[in-house]
Amino acid sequence: RPGQVLCSPLVLSEEQTSFLKTLYEPCNRFFEEVNDPNWNDKNEKVQAKTLQGLKELKMFGLQVPENLGGLGLTDTQYARMVEILGWHDLAVGVTLGAHQSSSFKGILLFGDKHQKEKYLPDLASGRSLAAFCLTEPTSGSDAASIWTMAEVSQCGKFYTLNGSKMWISNGGVADVFTVFAKTKVKDVTTGEEHGKISAFIVEKEFEGVTSGPPEEKMGIKASSTTSVSFDNVNVPAENVLGGFGNGFKVTMNVLNNSRFGTVSTLAGTMRRVIEKAANHAAKQKQFGKEIRNYGIIQDKLAHMAMYHCVTESMAYMISGNMDMKVSDFHLEAAISKIFASEASWEVTDECIQILGGAGYMKKAGVECIMRDLRIFRILEGTNDILQIFVALAGLQHAGAQLQELQHTLEDPLNNSSVLFTELGLRAKRIIWIPTGISLDGVVSGHLLDTAGLVTKCVDLLSEAVEHLLLKFGTQVTHHQFHLKRIADAAIDIYAMGVVLSRATQSLNHNLPSALHEKLLCESWCYKASERVRWNLKAVKASSWNCYYQNMKSITDEVVRTGGVLYPRPMGF
Amino acid sequence: RPGQVLCSPLVLSEEQTSFLKTLYEPCNRFFEEVNDPNWNDKNEKVQAKTLQGLKELKMFGLQVPENLGGLGLTDTQYARMVEILGWHDLAVGVTLGAHQSSSFKGILLFGDKHQKEKYLPDLASGRSLAAFCLTEPTSGSDAASIWTMAEVSQCGKFYTLNGSKMWISNGGVADVFTVFAKTKVKDVTTGEEHGKISAFIVEKEFEGVTSGPPEEKMGIKASSTTSVSFDNVNVPAENVLGGFGNGFKVTMNVLNNSRFGTVSTLAGTMRRVIEKAANHAAKQKQFGKEIRNYGIIQDKLAHMAMYHCVTESMAYMISGNMDMKVSDFHLEAAISKIFASEASWEVTDECIQILGGAGYMKKAGVECIMRDLRIFRILEGTNDILQIFVALAGLQHAGAQLQELQHTLEDPLNNSSVLFTELGLRAKRIIWIPTGISLDGVVSGHLLDTAGLVTKCVDLLSEAVEHLLLKFGTQVTHHQFHLKRIADAAIDIYAMGVVLSRATQSLNHNLPSALHEKLLCESWCYKASERVRWNLKAVKASSWNCYYQNMKSITDEVVRTGGVLYPRPMGF
Repeated sequence: RPGQVLCSPLVLSEEQTSFLKTLYEPCNRFFEEVNDPNWNDKNEKVQAKTLQGLKELKMFGLQVPENLGGLGLTDTQYARMVEILGWHDLAVGVTLGAHQSSSFKGILLFGDKHQKEKYLPDLASGRSLAAFCLTEPTSGSDAASIWTMAEVSQCGKFYTLNGSKMWISNGGVADVFTVFAKTKVKDVTTGEEHGKISAFIVEKEFEGVTSGPPEEKMGIKASSTTSVSFDNVNVPAENVLGGFGNGFKVTMNVLNNSRFGTVSTLAGTMRRVIEKAANHAAKQKQFGKEIRNYGIIQDKLAHMAMYHCVTESMAYMISGNMDMKVSDFHLEAAISKIFASEASWEVTDECIQILGGAGYMKKAGVECIMRDLRIFRILEGTNDILQIFVALAGLQHAGAQLQELQHTLEDPLNNSSVLFTELGLRAKRIIWIPTGISLDGVVSGHLLDTAGLVTKCVDLLSEAVEHLLLKFGTQVTHHQFHLKRIADAAIDIYAMGVVLSRATQSLNHNLPSALHEKLLCESWCYKASERVRWNLKAVKASSWNCYYQNMKSITDEVVRTGGVLYPRPMGF
Repeated sequence: RPGQVLCSPLVLSEEQTSFLKTLYEPCNRFFEEVNDPNWNDKNEKVQAKTLQGLKELKMFGLQVPENLGGLGLTDTQYARMVEILGWHDLAVGVTLGAHQSSSFKGILLFGDKHQKEKYLPDLASGRSLAAFCLTEPTSGSDAASIWTMAEVSQCGKFYTLNGSKMWISNGGVADVFTVFAKTKVKDVTTGEEHGKISAFIVEKEFEGVTSGPPEEKMGIKASSTTSVSFDNVNVPAENVLGGFGNGFKVTMNVLNNSRFGTVSTLAGTMRRVIEKAANHAAKQKQFGKEIRNYGIIQDKLAHMAMYHCVTESMAYMISGNMDMKVSDFHLEAAISKIFASEASWEVTDECIQILGGAGYMKKAGVECIMRDLRIFRILEGTNDILQIFVALAGLQHAGAQLQELQHTLEDPLNNSSVLFTELGLRAKRIIWIPTGISLDGVVSGHLLDTAGLVTKCVDLLSEAVEHLLLKFGTQVTHHQFHLKRIADAAIDIYAMGVVLSRATQSLNHNLPSALHEKLLCESWCYKASERVRWNLKAVKASSWNCYYQNMKSITDEVVRTGGVLYPRPMGF
């Protein structure tokens, strides 16, 4: 909906803004003066004085209501605060994020009065830490397939948990766990057994809860990652979270609600990294000139700036939407998580390339960021799974509309291929986002040409979606080569929308940076629109379909062989 | 030249092949049984027993002639041996590569009899280690701008070296250094002073040579990287390498001769990584199926296989060309170094994504490879500088031809714009690689359609180059946005050439893997040709020229501000 993308995300009252300022400055100063990211990385834990200071700053309960000991921040305020973590230390960011953005978010969203009052004050103050126990050895992206069991006691007052979770952030330091487990339930009419997933609040103190040794990781080393096992752990029935059997709903809501924080954290990281690159490019000379003067460096720096502009715009667009209580922000949250994690990776990689050899050294402080960032393309739903989700969410909507149209057609005319073509043309106008969409009056008059690129891309996406649905029907869900390209196009188009919105507002408010933002917006939209064309061509052209078949055949042989299957030119 | 790209790189005699086999198997077994890459990475040095074993295997002097204590391998044999290092441990690879591929390569290529006999036996046996001292704090890619001075003594028997080198591989462990330094020379006719660069063989034992503390790096931790300083170091005049004032020639030749080893090392790494990914994709289930069945995974794995196929083909194509004493392989070596370092990075990144959370853990052994690989896009000429070199090398050739044509034209007809257009059309036929090139009879009859894509791309590249030369003239050297895209296209086209050659040979020899290689070749060429079109469109279209202007403006403002210059939506 244009209104949701092209809205003003400035949803803070004056009072909220000034409260945020009182929090922001001391926190930023604390990180500059006290926290030592190198110490944390080297010693693979957050230094005690940092943890203590963060507790005093109330950073462990940013969104917990004030009457329960937290700061009661809105989503936009929270987004701004966690940007500080992204700027200074992603491992601390993951520790705090895992604690409040996912691990006890379930209690905030679904907890009853008793659960909230029992757990939130300690969690908000940092006296106790939380962990989110979903992933299992055989269940990563496929959350529904967990094996951890919760057997209800005969009296009904307890559930007995058995199973193992892996890669749990804060797993070795948490006191309170949100654990997802399955209970076998017999269908009274059919007699068949089904597994129902519920969420449980489990305390470290309950007998039978143990954490494995810390995992050695590529980055975010200061954050604890362990397995967590449950061996006949008795959990009181009142610790079921969100009602028995509602575990899948709880986990999806928690994940959807946590993504905006990841996006703004990474926007903060990118600001930092761009600063490092810009300063190096301004000083470092090669071949008699500062390297900022070379096109090959300008290509990189300008891309980094565009990536940041989009990511930051996405971050405050979602948090703004969430604060305005827009109910349907999940697609945007998924898009933004994919975009932010890819963009920050790209930006940091380019920063290292601009710094050259210096960028590879610990001293420059960029290689640590790069190692930390790698996990964000995997955690909280890998970007690959989220891409498929983005594509299917759009297709589902379009498919439903198209099906309806087909039904109405089947009634009066049973046999008309000519009319089917016409239907296709008409369908274009109603599926996905309506084509012929106009952004006049919504975007700044200075950006109408650029807005035209966006509406053109929306049309092309709509056409491509229709093409896929007519070609594959419901089987389209299995055509991931096509879905990936639909998702890439949708992500680019959403990104175009958010920068258009941002530049429009900066132009309307006559900000000093308005012309710069206009330039970023125009450049982004130009390049993104070219990429959208490329991706959508690869959805429709038959030569690409043949290429996808090749990819499948190549993979089949590589997997069968267990690797590269041809010999080297000398035969061994 | 088609003949150089589409040649058979099988330049080993039977005897050479069987000798290689006697070396290959024990070395591979040694790495599997003795070397511990995790130990090396953790302790930031190569374990003593590994070094000792490698000395016994004569791995320190692979290409040193046998009469000087080495194995006397050809370039192709060397390429095959260092693949083992890439497969098992890149940090060991860098240690050995820095030693023999660059640091004492100068002695091999340019040393006189006395220098060779004095230094090579100890270096070949590993009794002494070598380092290559070129880079300085203010001189990375711009090798000519070094500050280290070599003042000649009055008697002419000594040079006194003063200066500092940085990021020297083996800097802390080497006994023999190839050092590049400048001597001020007065021009006898003009009286002006010029700096002449020479290469010097410097021993650690010479007074005044000191190494700094080990640099802490992102990866290749087991290889020593330090600064090396020279404080009034007296070097005997007989230790000048390759003649006084020939330092630039020495360094360029060494770098050009060392790149093929990097390429095959990385081809070895990629084989390993693909094996890991293929095995994981075969076993790991999500949503009820092994993930190998999903298009989004197939897209990754098949790309990884194509990247490997190209890289390995490039490695043995250059080593083969070098063994056949082709003099002009520098452009191909630069292209291959760029390609191999980008491709191995991409492949390893995708492997981590396929492995998901497991890929981020040390245990899987991929994150270490990723950290190690990051330096290859920077070392021995950053890929950015090499891209410009690739583009300019092509343009130079084309420019010379075009200029000649213009001259011949200017004589008979001084004033004909119509004829100029015709000239353009004719020029196409002679610049860069001649268009209208035919690969019939050179490539397999089964690959003629694919060969057609290549010749079409050559035509397009030729047109784009001509367009640039006519538009910018000699000023084209400053248009790096365009040069980068020309280089990208040239790299893709060369890659198409080498896989065509490889697949042709496998088809001609009826190898069991021939049809698989044909599929890799066809798929690579299809996608690469689409990318070539995209890149060359971005060279010629005026909308892209406007985009490049934007990139420059954005960078100017970002650099001036020292980072992102717009406020967040809440104003701070």
